[in-house]
Amino acid sequence: MIDTGRNAALAGRPEGLEQLRTLLDTAFGALGDAALKRGGPVAPGGPEAAVAAVREALGGSRFLAEEPSAQRVADLFGAYATWAVDLTHPSAVARMQCAPTAASVAAELLAATLNQSLHAWESGPFALELERRLIAEMASWVGFGEAASGTLTPGGSISNLMGLLFSRDRALREADSTGPDSGAVSQAGLTGRRIRPRILCSAAAHFSIARAAGFLGLGRDAVLIVPVDERGRMLPEEARRLLDGFGPDEVAVALVATAGTTDHGSFDPLPELADLAAEYRIWLHVDAAYGIGALFSTSLAPLLDGLGRADSVAFDLHKFGWTPASSSVLLVRDRRDMECLDQQAVYLNPSDDEAAGYTALLGTSLQTTRRSDAFKIAASLLTVGREGMGAWVDACHAQARYAAGRIAATEGLHLVAQPLLSTVIFRCRPSAADPVTDESAWNAAVRRKLLAEGRALLARTKITGLDGVPQVHLKLVFLNPTTTEAEIDELLADITAAAREVARDGRHM
Amino acid sequence: MIDTGRNAALAGRPEGLEQLRTLLDTAFGALGDAALKRGGPVAPGGPEAAVAAVREALGGSRFLAEEPSAQRVADLFGAYATWAVDLTHPSAVARMQCAPTAASVAAELLAATLNQSLHAWESGPFALELERRLIAEMASWVGFGEAASGTLTPGGSISNLMGLLFSRDRALREADSTGPDSGAVSQAGLTGRRIRPRILCSAAAHFSIARAAGFLGLGRDAVLIVPVDERGRMLPEEARRLLDGFGPDEVAVALVATAGTTDHGSFDPLPELADLAAEYRIWLHVDAAYGIGALFSTSLAPLLDGLGRADSVAFDLHKFGWTPASSSVLLVRDRRDMECLDQQAVYLNPSDDEAAGYTALLGTSLQTTRRSDAFKIAASLLTVGREGMGAWVDACHAQARYAAGRIAATEGLHLVAQPLLSTVIFRCRPSAADPVTDESAWNAAVRRKLLAEGRALLARTKITGLDGVPQVHLKLVFLNPTTTEAEIDELLADITAAAREVARDGRHM
Repeated sequence: MIDTGRNAALAGRPEGLEQLRTLLDTAFGALGDAALKRGGPVAPGGPEAAVAAVREALGGSRFLAEEPSAQRVADLFGAYATWAVDLTHPSAVARMQCAPTAASVAAELLAATLNQSLHAWESGPFALELERRLIAEMASWVGFGEAASGTLTPGGSISNLMGLLFSRDRALREADSTGPDSGAVSQAGLTGRRIRPRILCSAAAHFSIARAAGFLGLGRDAVLIVPVDERGRMLPEEARRLLDGFGPDEVAVALVATAGTTDHGSFDPLPELADLAAEYRIWLHVDAAYGIGALFSTSLAPLLDGLGRADSVAFDLHKFGWTPASSSVLLVRDRRDMECLDQQAVYLNPSDDEAAGYTALLGTSLQTTRRSDAFKIAASLLTVGREGMGAWVDACHAQARYAAGRIAATEGLHLVAQPLLSTVIFRCRPSAADPVTDESAWNAAVRRKLLAEGRALLARTKITGLDGVPQVHLKLVFLNPTTTEAEIDELLADITAAAREVARDGRHM
Repeated sequence: MIDTGRNAALAGRPEGLEQLRTLLDTAFGALGDAALKRGGPVAPGGPEAAVAAVREALGGSRFLAEEPSAQRVADLFGAYATWAVDLTHPSAVARMQCAPTAASVAAELLAATLNQSLHAWESGPFALELERRLIAEMASWVGFGEAASGTLTPGGSISNLMGLLFSRDRALREADSTGPDSGAVSQAGLTGRRIRPRILCSAAAHFSIARAAGFLGLGRDAVLIVPVDERGRMLPEEARRLLDGFGPDEVAVALVATAGTTDHGSFDPLPELADLAAEYRIWLHVDAAYGIGALFSTSLAPLLDGLGRADSVAFDLHKFGWTPASSSVLLVRDRRDMECLDQQAVYLNPSDDEAAGYTALLGTSLQTTRRSDAFKIAASLLTVGREGMGAWVDACHAQARYAAGRIAATEGLHLVAQPLLSTVIFRCRPSAADPVTDESAWNAAVRRKLLAEGRALLARTKITGLDGVPQVHLKLVFLNPTTTEAEIDELLADITAAAREVARDGRHM
């Protein structure tokens, strides 16, 4: 057993490494037991059971315990693993969350033990140099040149926020007639400016764009929605029409393109939008949080043509990259656009230290202390490699196409469209014998039944049909390259079976 | 050896767990070797050597490798560990970065393997319930009641940003005469408002406050600096003077108190500032990123009296909490103040799912996908316990006091003040024989020499003396409870030796 209380061990000390080995045995035991106990992608019982599991693991006791105990930690490990959703299960197709590679997880252990940070040279000299190299290489992936820069971030929403922050400061600096100095938004703020800032994106853009506009003081109502085609792709001529209709006080801050929408996995037409952004001198931000997967695949890569003409690009390797969150990336084509993050602190990065080479990454991030996410990403990429990453993305794409084909051929299911990346949107369709009056409520209930019984984790969304009425649909998100066609058949059989069960049960909620 | 390329293993699968064990042996080997190779708190050679180490580990090759290789991953693990700063070393006293407990590191492995997220129920049902319970308990630590809420965040800078976001939206909603709906800043934005928003904090407040004002569109020049006493504590009567002098267009957004300043570890007078905030109806945000440590210590806890009267509190357990980053916390006294984060998405949290109990934590965070940081914090607290946490904080405080006493008694060192928490500020003082003309440059050079030779990691800052001239000082930050007095003696002896060496060498840069 491990020492507790004031004798508890710090992982990096010799006695700590011994105790860490003991605790890792506990963790591996918990993982092994969990797969057996769970029996599916999640333990059955739904929200009530999950709350009860936390209560059972912790009792009425406090975390800041009066009586620390190795047994209670072991119990917590067991409960956490048992009640986790199993992202390696073939029926876990709900969220854009991947099962990570063994190499990335081992790197996370090393990173946690050493707890390096990127904000000062003496907080992580190797870690920060590693991030610099990784960012430079990623910039070359998306087609950026030598002037590019960027950072790893805690997630796609913050990557999008940062892209919009840079666009805000550039647009308002240019719009401000009083000159470049007073125009720096991070200095002078937004109040009192007689302008209406505008961000253009499609209705299929991620909600984090509108949220970011709110956080940045531009307001959610700064976001103008550009109409899309039937697959959720932005129509460039509609964006142009909006821009041409601007009043004298309206300032275009950013045009946001989505590469890989949440539902269809659609790609906005990047070359046309890059032309438009150049013509109107607007910042082009590409949210490729999910769509970055295409980059690794020879056959899908053309979907990202034009990406290198963006001003900023956001993507998440905790989606199509097989590393654990946080693994998000924000890249800018011109590092000068990140200058609003410049920060000198006498105790962190004084100029004489910087002149002597002791530099760090404080000025690329919203954060100060920042964990080294580059390390696990590097370890994973070195293990899987270019061909492997492409093969995995292609496998997920093929799974989606296979599932779509099976759905189209199944009586009780209706396929909405052929998959573009690795999502499939469909709905359950009642037979004449099913007493279903509200198809939306029924589909939602089917999903919840599968969740509550621990049989399958599906996603859902709303799709507007030809009748103009938004209707609940189900969605499969394939991110696990090991899933087989037989397992997809099983999943679909389970969905149709659950649909019949819910219909017969008659209670759709 | 592990499989690579398209055959690389996902950690959570049976074959993945086997390969993970192999990789962890590599990681443990790297950690063991590193302590021997490093020979001190950091490998010698400074920035050039760190860059060369990355080059050597990776060669000219790319991360997205054409030829994935288990050997290259092993090499990367070895280099990362060897070139890490060793936070368990007694001479690693530069940054507010702790060596984490074995329990927290083991929990990080489990968290990485399972890769749960908190943004939707089916992305991590246990993980999100665990965070809810942890936040509720932490709220009770700081003296908040049942109405409190909060979130874990990627770091103290983002915790501060969130506190200021809430204060911004509340203040401007109240200031806006057009009513509560149109006044919601996240909806309507800041431009066109004829107001000058103001944030009051002391000169010793963290730079992330001014940065946050810039990011939020308030502008860095919204920050008014309140004078401090000789130990860097805000003077409430000076804050009152500033507030009384406001013009009709000035709107007080927030009063920011610092509990544990970066240099002296000073605590702003929270009871007086809470009175002031109540009187002027201003949001009180307390940045306790570092000062939270006092909470765990019976003797130091009174420094945080009044904390429960704040509107929001930020603190970092990756400083005084012995868990790896990210472990930051933002708490609010009234959960209604977080409503500007509300977000409904048809594909994540539709109302019928929420009614059925499938709720998550999307509406408490700036993020969407969000890693489970609560798990490692819970595991660590259960291991160390209340008495253990207090004993560790007291140990670090005692180390600082011991070091201060030794510095005061040492001929070539000048102590600035008695330590308040766990930092010690001092400078090297030349003897008559030392050919030192610029004491600031000399002290800075001493620190860099110790860094470059891998002997000690010190912090530095600037302190303005009686002559009004800011001068470079050195700083020790004690966060490792295992450090002994003999080790502190060795560290101080090394500093004085290095000071003599630099003086004799004659080149201070």
